[in-house]
Amino acid sequence: MQHTDIRALGGLVGRSVTVAGWVVTTRSSGKIAFLVLRDGSGYLQCVVSRKEVGDEVWDRCLALTQETSVRVTGSVRADARQAGGVELGASGLELIGPSIDFPITPKEHGTQFLFEHRHLWLRSRLQVAIAKVRHQVFQAIHDFFDERGFYHVSTPILTGSIGEEAGNLFSTEYFDLGTAYLAQTGQLYVEASCAALGRVYCFGPTFRAEKSKTRRHLTEFWMVEPEVAFADSADNMRLQEDFVSYIVSRALDRCREELKELERDTGALERVVAPFPRITYTDAVARLNELGSDLQWGHDLGGDDETLLCKEYDRPIFVMNYPKAVKAFYMKENPDDPRTVLNNDCLAPEGYGEIIGGSQREDDHDRLLARIVAQGLDPKAYGWYLDLRKYGTFVHSGFGLGVERTVAWICGIPHIRETIAFPRQIHRLYP
Amino acid sequence: MQHTDIRALGGLVGRSVTVAGWVVTTRSSGKIAFLVLRDGSGYLQCVVSRKEVGDEVWDRCLALTQETSVRVTGSVRADARQAGGVELGASGLELIGPSIDFPITPKEHGTQFLFEHRHLWLRSRLQVAIAKVRHQVFQAIHDFFDERGFYHVSTPILTGSIGEEAGNLFSTEYFDLGTAYLAQTGQLYVEASCAALGRVYCFGPTFRAEKSKTRRHLTEFWMVEPEVAFADSADNMRLQEDFVSYIVSRALDRCREELKELERDTGALERVVAPFPRITYTDAVARLNELGSDLQWGHDLGGDDETLLCKEYDRPIFVMNYPKAVKAFYMKENPDDPRTVLNNDCLAPEGYGEIIGGSQREDDHDRLLARIVAQGLDPKAYGWYLDLRKYGTFVHSGFGLGVERTVAWICGIPHIRETIAFPRQIHRLYP
Repeated sequence: MQHTDIRALGGLVGRSVTVAGWVVTTRSSGKIAFLVLRDGSGYLQCVVSRKEVGDEVWDRCLALTQETSVRVTGSVRADARQAGGVELGASGLELIGPSIDFPITPKEHGTQFLFEHRHLWLRSRLQVAIAKVRHQVFQAIHDFFDERGFYHVSTPILTGSIGEEAGNLFSTEYFDLGTAYLAQTGQLYVEASCAALGRVYCFGPTFRAEKSKTRRHLTEFWMVEPEVAFADSADNMRLQEDFVSYIVSRALDRCREELKELERDTGALERVVAPFPRITYTDAVARLNELGSDLQWGHDLGGDDETLLCKEYDRPIFVMNYPKAVKAFYMKENPDDPRTVLNNDCLAPEGYGEIIGGSQREDDHDRLLARIVAQGLDPKAYGWYLDLRKYGTFVHSGFGLGVERTVAWICGIPHIRETIAFPRQIHRLYP
Repeated sequence: MQHTDIRALGGLVGRSVTVAGWVVTTRSSGKIAFLVLRDGSGYLQCVVSRKEVGDEVWDRCLALTQETSVRVTGSVRADARQAGGVELGASGLELIGPSIDFPITPKEHGTQFLFEHRHLWLRSRLQVAIAKVRHQVFQAIHDFFDERGFYHVSTPILTGSIGEEAGNLFSTEYFDLGTAYLAQTGQLYVEASCAALGRVYCFGPTFRAEKSKTRRHLTEFWMVEPEVAFADSADNMRLQEDFVSYIVSRALDRCREELKELERDTGALERVVAPFPRITYTDAVARLNELGSDLQWGHDLGGDDETLLCKEYDRPIFVMNYPKAVKAFYMKENPDDPRTVLNNDCLAPEGYGEIIGGSQREDDHDRLLARIVAQGLDPKAYGWYLDLRKYGTFVHSGFGLGVERTVAWICGIPHIRETIAFPRQIHRLYP
């Protein structure tokens, strides 16, 4: 079917083209009508002159409603005032599919209503802009790792053994094998894979059956988890700061229009350049206490603590070496302070908080086994994971970056539920 | 931690480097030992001379066992007989992690044993080669769509409404909302998304709780599903042949070493060039009957039929316009023969069979509703999907490519279970 993308029209001034898309708005002034069209690739103002198109097309044009699908033929004209630098002087207009009483109108709608109509709401300007930023973040993630010799590994969603916390798991019957759980992380599997391939990453949906109803939680979200053989915690943080600044820089390069549409302060994003400040958990607690928090050493940072601490900095920061007691069993003990582990969180500025959790992994078989037992986990379920420490164990590190939190931060929007096409929350499974 | 990738050594002849990795094989001849090392990026022969390294390092070297992790320092020497064109003249050797009785030895092991030790088997030469081909297929998929202005959309795994078949679904309790099902396809969601973004694709794990125990089935597998607005069935097949030939060409470009390791006949892959032959289902049945199949018009092609038909061609083929009765409710009726639909399968040559199923979608609201009802599905669950035909409906098409089947074909291996790191089959959930 012959038609031209709206985004391609900038290079076709003077040419006659056909565009297919949906009506965003119409207005007319007796002899001239202005029709704004979208086709997913961009927005286009079509100028329809009654004199030029004749009465039949003119009447058809006046009757157009929001989200009607149409095919418009015309000639491309330069117009510096328009988004793509062009407009279309229409010569023909064909109606494809009518649209009566489209539910999402330019007026304000409640959140509940919008999410119930998510399949239609996705067509709105801001939602399109967020989706395009998300795409660029995805492509940047793949390009970053491919350029650095990482291999993508698909880790399983259906797992017999569990990842981090025994609670908060979705489960399903699995034939004659009993219960399978939906993976909360691919980490254990990328650890096995990096012994085969050196540098690897997994990237897919992960699941938490948490009853959290915050602006930072979804029950199904995408996480990217690289794992590197023969890399320690310091290497791990260098990789993280290169990674985060690469993603932000890609968004700045390729999403100028979208960030403008979202009214994002791009100055704040331009400051996201490695190296990121590093602060130990112990120093962070002291600083937070000075700032008025009553956080006590030994407890995890809460969302409010993260926000408070981030406000001190103009770029993402690393908080390192958390208390062993509040972190997962697989993190390597800090030899300089055995109360703590060789881990880090990366907190995004402007109040966004944690976007990454990373650590050097425990590579000693007996210490790891002791931690598994101490946490009340079943060593048998972790047999294959312990094997990695039996056969040529190796220093290795990795991290997980939450994609929705990262996209929310880059877009400057408050809630992560708008960063994914069909969000899943404890009260939302439709559409 | 300072060390150099084996793959980078080709450009470092004459330099002193440290390499970290695992022992593949050792052999010695009294004064000289040869140590083959792997680090995920490549393989390296290290030459250890007793005279040069001294007795302590020499003894350490002789004691090395398969999969021991080590750090070797030495100078890079050109050697055209070696894989990367270089070998390492060792001056130092540090043992990192021992490996006693590594289970996967160079001798033959049974399939059952290998899959139970999948986390270790992944380190074997052929498995590493397959994983690298898989990575390149993944990156090629993302690059192909990014270059053509598609946007990646994450479709949900947890779904209330269902995709294709009511049977074969994994299910889980979802808070107070009842049962959620694991998605068999993202298609319905990419259809909604392409009305927002024009050209989209989803790419993630999909689930079939099928009791099939064939070499072409997994319960969890990765599928990429593009969907294009204002594209018909003919456009769809052109996109598919461009896509498949792009992926194969990328593998030929970047996986020469791996395909050689797998003893793949690359001549067969070099013939995978668009256009692909097109044959209607009706003609395919006639031809299959000539070839000895007893397939009757109205039944779907079986695996044996696909193999038989593919043998007639030297590249992938499209079989088009299947009987409506054996295909999904969302496929558009063929106006030239209403017994059939505007769909196609793409069959890979050399006996591999179906790698793609695609179709133009039913874009008429009332016809779609009638098909949903006729198939005994609940129209309420499809309310949002029907909305796409109420508000600016549009011709659109898309397809799903099974990644594991594609990787198996490119690698020339008989069973898809080796193409994914941790395969899930009806009897396999571990590791």
